[in-house]
Amino acid sequence: MAFGWIDEQADARRRAGLVRTLRPRPADSPLLDLASNDYLGLARHPEVTEGAAAAARTWGGGATGSRLVTGTTALHRELEEELARFCGFEAALVLSSGYAANLAAVTALAPHGSLLVSDAGNHASLIDGCRLARAATQVVAHADPDAVRKALGTHGGQAVLVSDTVFSVDGDAAPLARHAEVCREHGAGLVLDDAHGLGVLGDGGRGAPHAAGLAGADDVVVTVTLSKSLGSQGGAVLGPARVIDHLVNTARTFIFDTGLAPAAAGAALAALRLLRREPERAARARAVAAELHARLSGAGLRAVRPDAAVVSVCAPSPEQAVRWAADCRAAGLAVGCFRPPSVPDGISRLRLTARADLSGAQIERAVRVIGETRP
Amino acid sequence: MAFGWIDEQADARRRAGLVRTLRPRPADSPLLDLASNDYLGLARHPEVTEGAAAAARTWGGGATGSRLVTGTTALHRELEEELARFCGFEAALVLSSGYAANLAAVTALAPHGSLLVSDAGNHASLIDGCRLARAATQVVAHADPDAVRKALGTHGGQAVLVSDTVFSVDGDAAPLARHAEVCREHGAGLVLDDAHGLGVLGDGGRGAPHAAGLAGADDVVVTVTLSKSLGSQGGAVLGPARVIDHLVNTARTFIFDTGLAPAAAGAALAALRLLRREPERAARARAVAAELHARLSGAGLRAVRPDAAVVSVCAPSPEQAVRWAADCRAAGLAVGCFRPPSVPDGISRLRLTARADLSGAQIERAVRVIGETRP
Ligand SMILES: Cc1ncc(COP(=O)(O)O)c(C=O)c1O
Ligand SMILES: Cc1ncc(COP(=O)(O)O)c(C=O)c1O
Repeated sequence: MAFGWIDEQADARRRAGLVRTLRPRPADSPLLDLASNDYLGLARHPEVTEGAAAAARTWGGGATGSRLVTGTTALHRELEEELARFCGFEAALVLSSGYAANLAAVTALAPHGSLLVSDAGNHASLIDGCRLARAATQVVAHADPDAVRKALGTHGGQAVLVSDTVFSVDGDAAPLARHAEVCREHGAGLVLDDAHGLGVLGDGGRGAPHAAGLAGADDVVVTVTLSKSLGSQGGAVLGPARVIDHLVNTARTFIFDTGLAPAAAGAALAALRLLRREPERAARARAVAAELHARLSGAGLRAVRPDAAVVSVCAPSPEQAVRWAADCRAAGLAVGCFRPPSVPDGISRLRLTARADLSGAQIERAVRVIGETRP
Repeated sequence: MAFGWIDEQADARRRAGLVRTLRPRPADSPLLDLASNDYLGLARHPEVTEGAAAAARTWGGGATGSRLVTGTTALHRELEEELARFCGFEAALVLSSGYAANLAAVTALAPHGSLLVSDAGNHASLIDGCRLARAATQVVAHADPDAVRKALGTHGGQAVLVSDTVFSVDGDAAPLARHAEVCREHGAGLVLDDAHGLGVLGDGGRGAPHAAGLAGADDVVVTVTLSKSLGSQGGAVLGPARVIDHLVNTARTFIFDTGLAPAAAGAALAALRLLRREPERAARARAVAAELHARLSGAGLRAVRPDAAVVSVCAPSPEQAVRWAADCRAAGLAVGCFRPPSVPDGISRLRLTARADLSGAQIERAVRVIGETRP
């Protein structure tokens, strides 16, 4: 039977304790949320939800076509201009997701005959971008500028380094300044995915590339998502205007995709304006992460020191990670649980996210629950 | 300079008359719209925009995480259940775009060692899905079951036919019944992209697979988008529950992507309910397309007979297609303009879309403008 083979895979997953199931949440969940990527606590902020509602009413439920046909509204343009200005880039292009933005940037900037140097810890969307691109890909050791130098040294033509700025599993940061130095030695470009940096790192949340002095450079292209600190959906590519024009003309996930829904653009724009007005939210998210880490470590747990708002805690096995997360949930705490194949090193983890709006009491409660339920 | 090579490509595009630029539209555009994919005229229907607004208020501006972590709300589940039931499938999975749905379905259902047979006219997202998959791909002649049979005959193992049901450029339909027959002879599965069929074809808009008697079959998987007749954003995969479970566990564009924004889910759900209540909208979209085609042909224009709601009109060259579309616009009519590299056969076209809510007078005006501005 067609598709019959998937049953064998399902059995193997069951035996390995790696079955994933969807758990719909209610609108008024009583759980304390340390699992979402809503780093600034803006997804349910009234200005953000009203931004979504007003945009839907003004512009409709969808963009109705590709950005190149009917899918570009004045709202999309406004969001692009404000995002570019905020992050310190000449231009921006909004796509329907961060995933699509990464596919667009990587494929469009790596022509046939060029080399993509890709960090071993990169997000799935960057990896898929490398696989879709016509370039050759060399995967290099995680966060290792020397490995990047070596890879670039093997290649004569165009080359691009592709890296997360903050890695999604462990929350550690890439050595951006040293990466840029190495790339510039070789005339290579940088494509940096700041999904977990925007809104958290840099002056007022302007992101990791801004903090590293790379914003606006003509050899740096940054992707961001609107779905984490900006509490919405969508993604964007930031860079020189010529690069953005190039994407408009060549990036398949831009050209052949319906534009971002107006409500998502409206929510992201409202969140961005809120962040500009309340820049202290970014520092607060970082402080919450640091406090979480300190308290977890103090309780004897193996937590990775956070460079942004993600705090990762190692678990002994996938099964124990799942049970640990379930026990937290039973005690009223939602935490993420990352297992193979979603972790590059095979180590299962609890993944906690700091939110700017967590109170001291909530942090204390979270740490207590995690400690009490540890395997 | 890094990225310096893109300037040469930009020059070449300029010389070839193939530069694409974004033209932001105002909320109250006076243009008569025959360019969007809003086939049922629902994107700005008050029930749809209120569906978006209410969902944003209840659930927030974004889903806040992967569908596997915090990104599945009860609203997502509701939409999945109603979509599956409406289209006649056991289960459904909602993703952030139709593009992501196609990448998910194709990559997850074509394991290493299998064969993907892909129609030469397929949408970019299906093509990218084939490129990302671990399977071998064989591209076959457009809408040709004999070519599919021949391709399947060359391969011993698992195989899947991948095809649009309605092709996005010319609006012609795939021979679904004959494709299914050929696939069943060989035990091959079918992955059908019904982006332009849902809401337009089949009983009350249940889609092309439903019309062909393929809905709910255990060897058929269908993808749809929420961004065309449902006037929103997002995509879905429909199929047997075991296939949907398999996607939940293995599809990278599902696992590593933030869930669809609640507003988009709310808008799509409202549109779906409207369509169920007013099934005549589907037939009306088809009737408008047929009338457009008849009148254009009557005026001596080379229009392709529409199988759904897309009506394609050939243009002599890319430059003339662009000028034609611009002249239509100047006369108050928005039409799509497809040029290389967005057309598989290199022929530039005006692309018109029928909408269920176009009046007879509007159709007449559209045909008049297109005739008067012809190159
Ligand atoms: C590092 C990174 N890049 C890109 C993405 C994709 O962004 P989006 O969910 O907006 O598609 C994610 C997570 O979802 C991510 O963690
Ligand atoms: C045939 C087809 N499949 C898939 C898509 C992608 O859907 P979405 O725009 O919702 O990502 C489109 C157009 O956008 C399409 O025309």
